[in-house]
Amino acid sequence: MSEGSSKLCGFVSTREIVIEWGQCDPAGIVYYPRYFDIFNESTVQLFAAAGYEKKQMQRDFGIIGYPMITTNATFHSPCTYSDRIVIRSGVIGWGRSSFEIRHELSKGKVLAVEAYEKRVWAVHDEATGRIRGSAAPQEVVERMLTVNSA
Amino acid sequence: MSEGSSKLCGFVSTREIVIEWGQCDPAGIVYYPRYFDIFNESTVQLFAAAGYEKKQMQRDFGIIGYPMITTNATFHSPCTYSDRIVIRSGVIGWGRSSFEIRHELSKGKVLAVEAYEKRVWAVHDEATGRIRGSAAPQEVVERMLTVNSA
Amino acid sequence: MSEGSSKLCGFVSTREIVIEWGQCDPAGIVYYPRYFDIFNESTVQLFAAAGYEKKQMQRDFGIIGYPMITTNATFHSPCTYSDRIVIRSGVIGWGRSSFEIRHELSKGKVLAVEAYEKRVWAVHDEATGRIRGSAAPQEVVERMLTVNSA
Amino acid sequence: MSEGSSKLCGFVSTREIVIEWGQCDPAGIVYYPRYFDIFNESTVQLFAAAGYEKKQMQRDFGIIGYPMITTNATFHSPCTYSDRIVIRSGVIGWGRSSFEIRHELSKGKVLAVEAYEKRVWAVHDEATGRIRGSAAPQEVVERMLTVNSA
Repeated sequence: MSEGSSKLCGFVSTREIVIEWGQCDPAGIVYYPRYFDIFNESTVQLFAAAGYEKKQMQRDFGIIGYPMITTNATFHSPCTYSDRIVIRSGVIGWGRSSFEIRHELSKGKVLAVEAYEKRVWAVHDEATGRIRGSAAPQEVVERMLTVNSA
Repeated sequence: MSEGSSKLCGFVSTREIVIEWGQCDPAGIVYYPRYFDIFNESTVQLFAAAGYEKKQMQRDFGIIGYPMITTNATFHSPCTYSDRIVIRSGVIGWGRSSFEIRHELSKGKVLAVEAYEKRVWAVHDEATGRIRGSAAPQEVVERMLTVNSA
Repeated sequence: MSEGSSKLCGFVSTREIVIEWGQCDPAGIVYYPRYFDIFNESTVQLFAAAGYEKKQMQRDFGIIGYPMITTNATFHSPCTYSDRIVIRSGVIGWGRSSFEIRHELSKGKVLAVEAYEKRVWAVHDEATGRIRGSAAPQEVVERMLTVNSA
Repeated sequence: MSEGSSKLCGFVSTREIVIEWGQCDPAGIVYYPRYFDIFNESTVQLFAAAGYEKKQMQRDFGIIGYPMITTNATFHSPCTYSDRIVIRSGVIGWGRSSFEIRHELSKGKVLAVEAYEKRVWAVHDEATGRIRGSAAPQEVVERMLTVNSA
């Protein structure tokens, strides 16, 4: 996929993987739940690429995770084992205590799958001992808005 | 979840499963890609419950499968291992060569996850040797529109 | 498989599952890592069937889990989706802080897969705050040695 | 792990991966069935590194795959998400129609998991139309016996 047609902006991470035999079903194509495994890890690596490893965010920001609120994916073209694919990922929106991610998974010049995630920035509330949504730290927001060269 | 609040109608299948340890992540809750494993199998079982086993449909209707076009899921409440959950599933729309499925996954009276699928009814085209979308057989459409007592 | 040929004795749990489409690979047969998912859950259900739910054992016995030390599986006959299989499981040995499990997975009368697990009974050591192996409670050992009618 | 302590010889492939959040269980460590996903892909990549991509072997040698006969794994030390691990893999034996693989998975200098696989070299028998075990081609055997610098 040409970058010109991407709907991503700001900080974008790119990773390349090769589809595994075990990710494919009897029809010989990627079993679609496996794409969500790929996208979740892409979100983890998006933050890591920006300097925010998950374990470090847990220590530094008291974040316990960023559980999914809603996700969707659209499948334009099937992938099969040994296909070399590229996933480009970025934050496309910040809410009060949520944020939105977009993934573009392409095979050569073809956009094979696109996905959207809305997640909550979840922290441990020391006062109540419970988990609650919270605004993401300003430095994280600013970092993810900064265009990089990926 | 009370059936009164369900958005399902027509033929509805119900299955009950217990969340497995291996479906949960380090946060102790179901790793969300696993819900798509659950929902895909729920779609298989929906047709099977209506009398259409996947292998039989392959033989009788020349269907090679019903690949996903787009899916989304919204997560209202987390589940953890040993939780007993119920998934209710039904077809909620028929297009020219596609159809739409809805899943309602509940834990006790709580609707924990709801999901939507748009799939294509894909057959093997004997003339061209290729796979193409096709209208689903009328008997299948009618069967799935028939209200049952699930 | 006839019970006469089983190598299980003592308390035996039995569960029946239907192989899912998503558990099979492009060769159309169960992708073998999925059998380990099945067997791990079978071990969980073995204890549950004997009256020891995992969460309850965590509360009652301070057990944090029973991590795997070594496992092996031998695959005699492939299974495919929609196959109805039966898994029979039992403890076949107790060590000082470990125990051994055997699973027999059969399709009709055919023993398709047999598996062995050696696990450690792991508890939280209050004195040191660390995890360590421990002898299983005598009541659990005795219960698992008791022949049932499964 | 130092190479000096490796039990591998002949052609050895090495790959490095980072453990994903979704591969870990509520105890925070890799859910052991996921190691078999890792090892199966390591076997695929072992042959690919030697010049034998799976799809190419299917075309060139009529191989339909190399189904597992028996496998075992021993877990010495747990891994958790974001751990950087190395898997070294090699063929350690050739039978008449089977072969044996060894995997050494290490975290830094620690051998965390070691695994053994016995697989059959399975081909499509044109005469009978069935799948049967066969001797691996001599060129493959010789290639896999050749020491490389991995």
